[in-house]
Amino acid sequence: MILVNGVPGDTIAVTDRGLAYGDGVFRTLAVRGGQPRQWRRHYDRLGRDCAALGIVCPDETTLRSDLAQLSNSGSDFAVKIIITRGSGPRGYAPPSPAQPTRIVSASALPQYPQDFAARGIRLRLCAIRLGFQPALAGVKHLNRLENVLARREWDDADIAEGLLCDTEGNAICGTMTNLFLVERGALFTPALTRCGVAGVTRDRVIDAAARHGVACHVENVACERVLQAEEVWLTNSLVGIWQARELGDRRWAPGTLVARMRQWLDEESAQSP
Amino acid sequence: MILVNGVPGDTIAVTDRGLAYGDGVFRTLAVRGGQPRQWRRHYDRLGRDCAALGIVCPDETTLRSDLAQLSNSGSDFAVKIIITRGSGPRGYAPPSPAQPTRIVSASALPQYPQDFAARGIRLRLCAIRLGFQPALAGVKHLNRLENVLARREWDDADIAEGLLCDTEGNAICGTMTNLFLVERGALFTPALTRCGVAGVTRDRVIDAAARHGVACHVENVACERVLQAEEVWLTNSLVGIWQARELGDRRWAPGTLVARMRQWLDEESAQSP
Repeated sequence: MILVNGVPGDTIAVTDRGLAYGDGVFRTLAVRGGQPRQWRRHYDRLGRDCAALGIVCPDETTLRSDLAQLSNSGSDFAVKIIITRGSGPRGYAPPSPAQPTRIVSASALPQYPQDFAARGIRLRLCAIRLGFQPALAGVKHLNRLENVLARREWDDADIAEGLLCDTEGNAICGTMTNLFLVERGALFTPALTRCGVAGVTRDRVIDAAARHGVACHVENVACERVLQAEEVWLTNSLVGIWQARELGDRRWAPGTLVARMRQWLDEESAQSP
Repeated sequence: MILVNGVPGDTIAVTDRGLAYGDGVFRTLAVRGGQPRQWRRHYDRLGRDCAALGIVCPDETTLRSDLAQLSNSGSDFAVKIIITRGSGPRGYAPPSPAQPTRIVSASALPQYPQDFAARGIRLRLCAIRLGFQPALAGVKHLNRLENVLARREWDDADIAEGLLCDTEGNAICGTMTNLFLVERGALFTPALTRCGVAGVTRDRVIDAAARHGVACHVENVACERVLQAEEVWLTNSLVGIWQARELGDRRWAPGTLVARMRQWLDEESAQSP
């Protein structure tokens, strides 16, 4: 089911700037047991991302009402929320005032092999390097061609994710996930000040580490460190945490910190879904 | 008038990857006297840009037939052609085979003050810097948030264009135009190997210079050189060549080479529209 500005529909105007320029932002979240998971965090990030582009974010009540309308999609599904700057005449100058478009759609939760969560995933190194754009770094905007080009690099269904480095050789993320390394028992996750998308599960892992006394460093992470790390995690709102079990010649056994972190996230989820 | 896959319409599917990821390319060209101008060059560039993303470009006959359908929009109008990878399920992996979406729309030619062509335009320096992405450099793709953010920096209608530099301090382009400098009688235009869009009028200027024995260098151009240049030109398919008459404290009088270049382009246009 798809809602466009709150009304069931499956089309948008050709003149929408989301199409013309990728002039908008999005979020993907899980609904489980009828509950949008981590709604507070997703809505906060949505608001910050809209602000980065100067788009007025729909108010929370409106979006919650859209989500409620999707409930005939069952109790467990994936939701994608897209907010664009809305329609406008040809040309880059945003219309003023703009009338943002909001698209809220439900789809089946992705079905990954049990293996991925239990034993970990096969990871590959992508050839494309992420460029720097501090004005857009961290923002989950609709300009995602780098991710598309990266994901086009392989079609082996057994490889779950590709590792993306930036043009200076720092590891940044997966094509659809954030990245964490475990080194000497501490967590490290790439700083997203020049590229990358700041996901909600990344925020949750950082916060859970702090709550449980595990050091978590947000910093530049040279690509080589990934191979040397004790554990390598890929995170997003639909998969939670995947551990890497294979990257090139490197193999990892199921880690100990990842198991604890999953438990901490589950506990947090039970308290504040 | 708008044609979506050859059929009059003004909507596209919400699931189109052009919206989801900016996964597509576009061109803007002029129809004058019922003739799409510089069609051969535009179609060639469209094909190259599609290839850069691995999208199958519609064949020329199909697009010419779309253009013919637009002829009830009058004899002089602007055409925008968008080619996206088409619809797909959630996720970055492109569907295979993909069914590209083609959107061909007519709108009124922009009406700029006579002044802009005759006396030149006021130019400003944009604060945002273009990031590097060699895999997409030169391609007129739908990921245009940098241009949108740049164009949002000012709303003084008297300023026609903003100058964009890259993160290393090279001048690259305007928000919607390519850039040429005249130095000691020779032409210089920024290399577009790391960012920027290679426009058809840029190609035409480069070719016309060669035909008429004017040296034209494609190279990195430090931002400071813009202020020192004898003439500064901004080019695109709808405006032709605008000369800068003002940037910060710098003023330029109408140039001599720009007048000759306009004549050369007009002559070429008469021979191969």
